[in-house]
This record gives sequence, C-alpha cells and structure tokens, in this order.
Amino acid sequence: MAENVNEEEVQARFEELSVLEAEFEDVELELIRKSNALNAPLWKKRAEVISKIPHFWTLVFEQAPPELDSFILPSDAQIFAECFESLEITRFEIDDPKGSPRSISIKFGFGDNEYFEDKVLEKKFWFRKSRDWEGLVSEPVKINWKKDQDTTFGLTDAAIKLAEAKKKASSKAKETELPEYKKLASLIEESTEASPSFFAWFAFVSDYRWVSAEESEQAEKEDAERLEKLKRGEKVEEPEDDDDDTIDYQETEVFPQGGEIATLIAEDLWPSAIKYYKQSHEQDGEDFSDIDVEDMDEDEDESGDEIDIRGLVGKGRAGSPPSKKQRKA
Amino acid sequence: MAENVNEEEVQARFEELSVLEAEFEDVELELIRKSNALNAPLWKKRAEVISKIPHFWTLVFEQAPPELDSFILPSDAQIFAECFESLEITRFEIDDPKGSPRSISIKFGFGDNEYFEDKVLEKKFWFRKSRDWEGLVSEPVKINWKKDQDTTFGLTDAAIKLAEAKKKASSKAKETELPEYKKLASLIEESTEASPSFFAWFAFVSDYRWVSAEESEQAEKEDAERLEKLKRGEKVEEPEDDDDDTIDYQETEVFPQGGEIATLIAEDLWPSAIKYYKQSHEQDGEDFSDIDVEDMDEDEDESGDEIDIRGLVGKGRAGSPPSKKQRKA
Repeated sequence: MAENVNEEEVQARFEELSVLEAEFEDVELELIRKSNALNAPLWKKRAEVISKIPHFWTLVFEQAPPELDSFILPSDAQIFAECFESLEITRFEIDDPKGSPRSISIKFGFGDNEYFEDKVLEKKFWFRKSRDWEGLVSEPVKINWKKDQDTTFGLTDAAIKLAEAKKKASSKAKETELPEYKKLASLIEESTEASPSFFAWFAFVSDYRWVSAEESEQAEKEDAERLEKLKRGEKVEEPEDDDDDTIDYQETEVFPQGGEIATLIAEDLWPSAIKYYKQSHEQDGEDFSDIDVEDMDEDEDESGDEIDIRGLVGKGRAGSPPSKKQRKA
Repeated sequence: MAENVNEEEVQARFEELSVLEAEFEDVELELIRKSNALNAPLWKKRAEVISKIPHFWTLVFEQAPPELDSFILPSDAQIFAECFESLEITRFEIDDPKGSPRSISIKFGFGDNEYFEDKVLEKKFWFRKSRDWEGLVSEPVKINWKKDQDTTFGLTDAAIKLAEAKKKASSKAKETELPEYKKLASLIEESTEASPSFFAWFAFVSDYRWVSAEESEQAEKEDAERLEKLKRGEKVEEPEDDDDDTIDYQETEVFPQGGEIATLIAEDLWPSAIKYYKQSHEQDGEDFSDIDVEDMDEDEDESGDEIDIRGLVGKGRAGSPPSKKQRKA
C-alpha cells in the first residue's frame, strides 16, 4: 500500500467513492421498492390478524428498544395502554419520480379517550436534500387536546401556530421576529429540564431545518449534474453551504430526535412487530410466572413512576406464548 | 376491539402470526439474495478503489458505532492502525439450498506485522437452528501469534484446543471432563475482570451452543412440517426444548457477543464503509483544523490509554474532505 499520497490523489479517490456511493444509493432505493412490493400483501394480512388481538401495538411499543422507549413517559404509556389501536406505515412517494422511497407516513389509530379528540394522527416524513444535508423533514401535526389534557403543555399547539405564521409571513429574515417564534422558543427553553411527552414528536420538523420540495429538487438536480461531470472525469466544485447562519432552527425544534424515532418505528418496530409482540408474552411468562395476571388491579399501577403496559393490558389476555424461538442474527 | 379473549383464541392468533412470520422470513431471504446480487458488482468496484487508499478499513473501524467500538481495546486499535489492510464479507451459502443466505464469512487481511504470522484471518458464521433457538454459530479461528504477542493471553489457543478435543472425544457427556474444557473455562473465569482483546472474537462459537449442520437441517424440517400443519388448520405441538441443561456452554464461550459483532460488521460497517470513511475525514477537519497532522509524532500516542487511529494514520493523508453531506434517515 502506498503510504504517501498527495492531495490530488486523495481528492481523486474521494471522487471515485462519491460516484460509487451514488450507485449504492440507487441499489438501496431499488431494494426499498422491492421490499415494499413483496411485503405489502403480508402487511395487509398481518393487519387483519392484529385487528383481532387487543393491545397488539401497545405491547409492541412496550418492547421497543431503548432509543425509542426512553421517549415514552409513564403518562404516554398510560395513554397507549388505554386507546392505541392501530399503526400503519406507508411509503407514500414510492412511485413518485419526484419523491423518494425513503419518505414515510406513520399513522396512529386511537379509540375514544379522555385525552384528545383525534381518532387518527398521521405524521408524514419527506426525505429531502439541501446542498449540504439530506434527511427527513415533517410538518407539525395538530392534536386536538381535550381540556387540561395536553401532555406536551402547549408545545404541539405552539409549533402549529409557528408553522402557520411562517406560511403567512413574507420573508425568511423576519422569522425570529414573529411572536409565534418567540413563544415556541421560550416554551422549549422552559421545558428543557423535563423530558417531553412522546406526543411532542408529532410537532417535529427537522434536525436541520425545513427543506421544501422545490429546494430538494434543485439540490437533487445539482447533485446529478455533479455526478455526471465526475463520471466524465471533469473537475467539479464542492457545493457551497447555503445555511442561513443567522437563525438557529433548533431553537424552535420541539423534538430534535424526531427523524430518528420515525426511522426506528418504520424500520424496526413495523417490520419486527410480531417478534416484539411474542417477546412481550415471553416476558410475561418469566416475570409473572407465579402471579395470576387476571387478578392484577390495573389502577394500582397508575400511582407508580414506571407503568408496565403489560400489567395494564394483562387483563385482556390469557394463556402463555406458544413459541419461545429467539432470533439471534 | 374485543377485550375478553380466551386461551384458544390467543393460541389461534399466535398460530396465524407464526404462519405470517414464516412468510415474512421468506421475503427477507429473497431480499438478502436480491441485495447480494445487485451490490456484488459495486463491492468489487469499491474494493478496487479502496486498495488505493491507505488505512481505509482502519479508519472505518475507528468510526464504528459504540456496540463494536467498545470491544476494540487501545492495543487492538494499535494493531489495526499498523497492519489492517482489507475486509471482505461474503454470503457463502447464498446459493446453497441446504445453507442460509444469513450465513456470512468475514475475512480480515493484514500486512506483515510483529503480532501474528497470518496474512488472512477468515471467520465463518453459519446461520443454524435448533428446536428452540436460531442464530449464528462459528468455529474458533487459529491465530498464529508471534512470541509474547498474544493479545488474548491464550484464549484463542485454548478455544482451538477445546474444539479439537471435542471432535476427538466420543460422547457429549464427557465434555466438561476434558482437560481442555477446564483449562478454557478457568482462563475465561480469570479474565472476566478485564475486557478481552477484539482478537478473542475469532474464538467465538455461539451465544447458545454449537449447532451442527445435521441438527439444524432436522430442526428446519420439523419447522416446515409444523408450518404445513398450521396452514392446513391442524393441531400442532410446540417443539420440546432439547437443551442439555447439564452443561453451561457459555462457561467456555470466549466472546459471547461474537454473533452480534459479526452482524454489525456485515450489516453496518460493510455496506456503509464509504460513509464511515468520509466521516473520519470530517472529524479530522473539525478536530485537527488548527493542528498540522503531518507534524504529529506517532509514537507519542502509544503511551496514552486511548489511541486515536486517525492520529496514528494521519501521516498518510493530506487534504480535507470534499464532502460533508450527512445521511440523516
């Protein structure tokens, strides 16, 4: 191996790797499309079976890996246990040549409850690019909280109001001057001590900043042109950063990890839901082997700091898991 | 949603989910085959580019997520920085109807070094099933350590010796009586205080127990028969556990997390290598922006507890990263 390489050589290798990266990405997108096509009929069949199983998704979320579980407060777990009824993931831009197979819609279905009016909360995530970033962006989703039941203490409402105000406002430069901006920023600042409710995730916009479809299309076009030049062996300039450094967009981001959580739900909980559901039964078998779950008093759990959804929903089930098979690869 | 379901209903739903799980698994295996076919030509091209980039894989491993990074001791990082030259992952059973597309071979290539004689260390992982487990099993790989250079302090040698002794021994029951068993178990017991060297991973066998091809084929056959019965709506019995509870196989397992590490290398580091390599340059740009890396004295790093591979290999590179694009989805 050559130990001494000069700057031009490093640059040349980087360019070769960039061309390759684009080819790997094309393969990845084809595989997402293929996976979607092959799995779609199975997801449909699964939804039919799940509809007959009380608390299926609540039990799945209870088994979520720590990266997600740490965002579910005891009060959120309580809401999930009471009324979380269905989950649906769709890749709504998968056949759209201007969209991305990486864009996802996450639809939560709820039963009647004392917390909010909504039966469905759907959060859409668009996979977008700027000149120096790519990732998921979303719009805040309105939650129609019942009186005094807002677990986000105004965060979702304030995020909606800022989004509406920004649409009305004329120029970007004024954003930080909007009263809605100041209101949301101060709400977030005040709440940094405590973990936000999981429901604040519905207000997520971006871990970078909002990127519009037009901006993303332009960045995509520039990327493609750059790549064509690289393939022809022509010199290319790196795109310049076009960040507006005068605004710290994270100052009004209610849930900075929102994109990661969306990815985790779509790429782990959703495909592995049966595994997690079975796990919850196995744990029951181990944890409660000597306890008659039928006799557990649900209300007792509410006073504790940690709410065990399996305890809360245990009443609806009977019988132990038929399968203990573990996937270890 | 029905809140009160009886045991038979739960059982029926579990069976429906089991049938579905098998269908999801078939799709997953088809996608692994598809992914392998589409990516193979790109991996070949990538290997050609990488062969011209000194320390590519060392830099990639330096960027590894904490689940892997925590197993790389400073002394391991030193070895990687000095002589780790190539990595190759193959799914060696992908076209074998009796094998599994989940089986993987991980081949490390090394340059001349003061630690061991081997130029290639290849570790194969077979995806196998028992009646109540499925996962990756492997055989200990012999490392020809140079005198006084064994970073595993005899663990890899002892694991090889036990594997050989087991092959010669007649019956399973005697395993714990073998002197090689006692030797390895006591070596592991003594070393529980300190983290083992990453090279002990080459001695990994299983996080469960060794499962032979014959046993796996038998379990697979029983699974398939059970599934056919379920599909026909016939009653099935859960397979009985056939664990030999008289032996604690983990007593002689040198690296219990070996399968997870293999999966992480094959499913994260390998496909995302270019991303990690670029990341290492970005960090350089940030961390060393005011330091002339050319002037760094490599030897100084050796005395520290934490060895920064980027510092060690920095001499071979020049220039800053052309791309700062981040994937956030």
